[in-house]
Amino acid sequence: MLTKEELLAKAKKPAQDAMIMHPFYRGKIQVVPRCAVRSLDDFAIWYTPGVAEPCKAIKQNKELVYEHTCKWNTVAVVSDGTRVLGLGDIGPEAAMPVMEGKALLFKYLGGVDAVPICLDTKDPDEFVKTVKYLQPSFGGINLEDIAQPKCFGILERLRKEMEIPVWHDDQQGTAAVTLAGLINAVKLVGKKMDEVKISMIGAGAANIRIAWVIIAAGVKPGNIIMTDSKGILHPGRTELKEQFKEKWELCLTTNSEGRVGGVADAIKGTDVLIALSTPGPDTIKKEWIKTMNDDAIVFACANPIPEIWPWEAKEAGARIVATGRSDFPNQVNNSLGFPAIFRGALDVRAKTITDEMCIAAAEELARYAEEKGLLSEEYLIPTMDEWEVFPREAAAVGAKAVEQGVARINVSKEDLYKKAEELISMAREETKLLMEKGLIPPAPID
Amino acid sequence: MLTKEELLAKAKKPAQDAMIMHPFYRGKIQVVPRCAVRSLDDFAIWYTPGVAEPCKAIKQNKELVYEHTCKWNTVAVVSDGTRVLGLGDIGPEAAMPVMEGKALLFKYLGGVDAVPICLDTKDPDEFVKTVKYLQPSFGGINLEDIAQPKCFGILERLRKEMEIPVWHDDQQGTAAVTLAGLINAVKLVGKKMDEVKISMIGAGAANIRIAWVIIAAGVKPGNIIMTDSKGILHPGRTELKEQFKEKWELCLTTNSEGRVGGVADAIKGTDVLIALSTPGPDTIKKEWIKTMNDDAIVFACANPIPEIWPWEAKEAGARIVATGRSDFPNQVNNSLGFPAIFRGALDVRAKTITDEMCIAAAEELARYAEEKGLLSEEYLIPTMDEWEVFPREAAAVGAKAVEQGVARINVSKEDLYKKAEELISMAREETKLLMEKGLIPPAPID
Repeated sequence: MLTKEELLAKAKKPAQDAMIMHPFYRGKIQVVPRCAVRSLDDFAIWYTPGVAEPCKAIKQNKELVYEHTCKWNTVAVVSDGTRVLGLGDIGPEAAMPVMEGKALLFKYLGGVDAVPICLDTKDPDEFVKTVKYLQPSFGGINLEDIAQPKCFGILERLRKEMEIPVWHDDQQGTAAVTLAGLINAVKLVGKKMDEVKISMIGAGAANIRIAWVIIAAGVKPGNIIMTDSKGILHPGRTELKEQFKEKWELCLTTNSEGRVGGVADAIKGTDVLIALSTPGPDTIKKEWIKTMNDDAIVFACANPIPEIWPWEAKEAGARIVATGRSDFPNQVNNSLGFPAIFRGALDVRAKTITDEMCIAAAEELARYAEEKGLLSEEYLIPTMDEWEVFPREAAAVGAKAVEQGVARINVSKEDLYKKAEELISMAREETKLLMEKGLIPPAPID
Repeated sequence: MLTKEELLAKAKKPAQDAMIMHPFYRGKIQVVPRCAVRSLDDFAIWYTPGVAEPCKAIKQNKELVYEHTCKWNTVAVVSDGTRVLGLGDIGPEAAMPVMEGKALLFKYLGGVDAVPICLDTKDPDEFVKTVKYLQPSFGGINLEDIAQPKCFGILERLRKEMEIPVWHDDQQGTAAVTLAGLINAVKLVGKKMDEVKISMIGAGAANIRIAWVIIAAGVKPGNIIMTDSKGILHPGRTELKEQFKEKWELCLTTNSEGRVGGVADAIKGTDVLIALSTPGPDTIKKEWIKTMNDDAIVFACANPIPEIWPWEAKEAGARIVATGRSDFPNQVNNSLGFPAIFRGALDVRAKTITDEMCIAAAEELARYAEEKGLLSEEYLIPTMDEWEVFPREAAAVGAKAVEQGVARINVSKEDLYKKAEELISMAREETKLLMEKGLIPPAPID
């Protein structure tokens, strides 16, 4: 087993590589033709004079923009740079490498064309207005790295006021993948979703949305005990009433036994611990895990270092441990969510992404792992490598949208699966081809 | 020679093809990786945790966004859809096919990654604010198809208030390419730029900007006689004073002989006619051309049908005729301008694109045609096929930016040329490769 120092060093390697690879490639994405250019004469079709015809058709029927342009497959990845990774408010320029990375993942894992857009305003009203102005060109909006509490209001307004799906990955994406892991973990230890008691450490945008989504998926609100930096949420936390209405509502609906106190008090006697708080190690202590119920499930998802090392949690009695890291088993990785969920939403031209669509994605991820026959303490959910899960997930999401009446077009689950598989394969082939032919030059380091 | 009916039919062919090709390809551009993805482990470099490092570097020094992200090569093609081609105010969705076509041309001819953004607002203040918010993600802004007179104010404000080049192609792009043709036409007939008298028919955004740019290039303002739909611009046209300040200024500065009257009166006794008005034929009559000076030069640039057929202009005594069509000699084609001009501006990280940079581009286009040794009444400027002119044009633009002190970095003209040639070649190779391998499927029609 690696020592703590070796693990920390391992966590630093990508950072060092990133500072060589980023200036070498100068960006992670590029724009290339989607259509044939047989000769320059084709520009009379793609541009003036021919292009006037599809323009006129769309003017007559706005919906045809989905047929004649790339709106059907294009998502804007939008941030104001106010809460980037764990780095805080670093501004829109400094947020760009993350948004480009997201766009890369969107294409490679979901076959989705994504455009990084970092906005030079911190005002939530201006942000909302600007994103609404972008609507004609995009089939969906992926919000990213926006500070809380404003991220809740921004998401709520945009979901209400736009005709295309709006998603805040730090909320909904994290919630979908966490739920997938939770479903299989609870099943594995022979417990039930509507009976488990869950401590949630950290009350950031991710954990608050996880609470909402797992409640929608069957967890009893009263069985959740959540903490923020001041301790357990309970009805006495009236200081939250004005500024943090989302937390305040959780004060009223969770924690039916009315616990008070700190993190240690929250964890005691719970079946599941979901931590999305301060990077560890030792944010969560071994002795606290020891106070959990038998067959304890621990999600310690802070990045880059989990709140407690997995082996320490296990020594303290945890049966299952999940983290945010790829070098431990059970990585809770947003990349398992957003690319395929958007794939499914786009392919039915969904007007929104409902919580039920997120839950359908989570259930499909969990089902895939189970059907593989590998379900164990070390394999709760698939990894990014198992990309055959993505078309299944996309189809589940699209089918749920059709069922709920939020899809603009009706596509069968089978066709959704085929389409998703085709588009994702193409994205991977394109990448491979460009690398083989040197149009993406070889990396300067191993 | 083709009859008028055959020519009109020929103009319709691209429209028919466009309605087959557009829904077949469903968009003209796509987003693909620019960087190597050797395995999914690379996502630890391109996304979290590695990506935090370039984020922190940019936070320390904002300028590094040009090194670590694709900002250096990315342009937003922005429209509000209020004046699309000759179709008028068709709205942002219906404008999308044009903006995507522009993005395709940007890549194929200039190696520039362009993103079509059609904004859902007609309010010029909101438009300006929104484009400014987009600044962190883009290296330049190409405005397109915005109604006049607001397009002048929008361009002026954005050029003043942004740190990246802002360009309105309908103005500056058309002006640069028209100037290129004019330089060689005037030379060919043995006249001088500071002596020719020029009638300008139409006072839209394009012709107004052409007037400004040819004046900057040496034409005497007093030698220009411009008309709008009400006739010749002169100091008596006080109705323009309030609503159309750009036209009003031209009333005061052009037309030193104080002509009044209509189009026929404007054309009489001029050496050059530049028409950008109502599609013809017969917008401009043969007998009017007959009243021009010897060796008359006629630019009849309405699309899809020029204001007068080239052979009619020639029969009436014109020595040189240019149009907007690719099936006649001397096509005044914006695609000769914007891709290479942005290439040059981006490669020196220009803060703006000055009139002098436009003029440098025009001179390089003219020089290329002359150096080829083919200069004649039938060959004033190169065509898109002669793509070896683009790196020369880019280098001329970049070098002028350095000379004028509007470049953020100093690059030699030779290096600019090499870089431009490499990037444009790559774009063409990528397209070819994707077509060869079926990742861009074969066209459904010939």
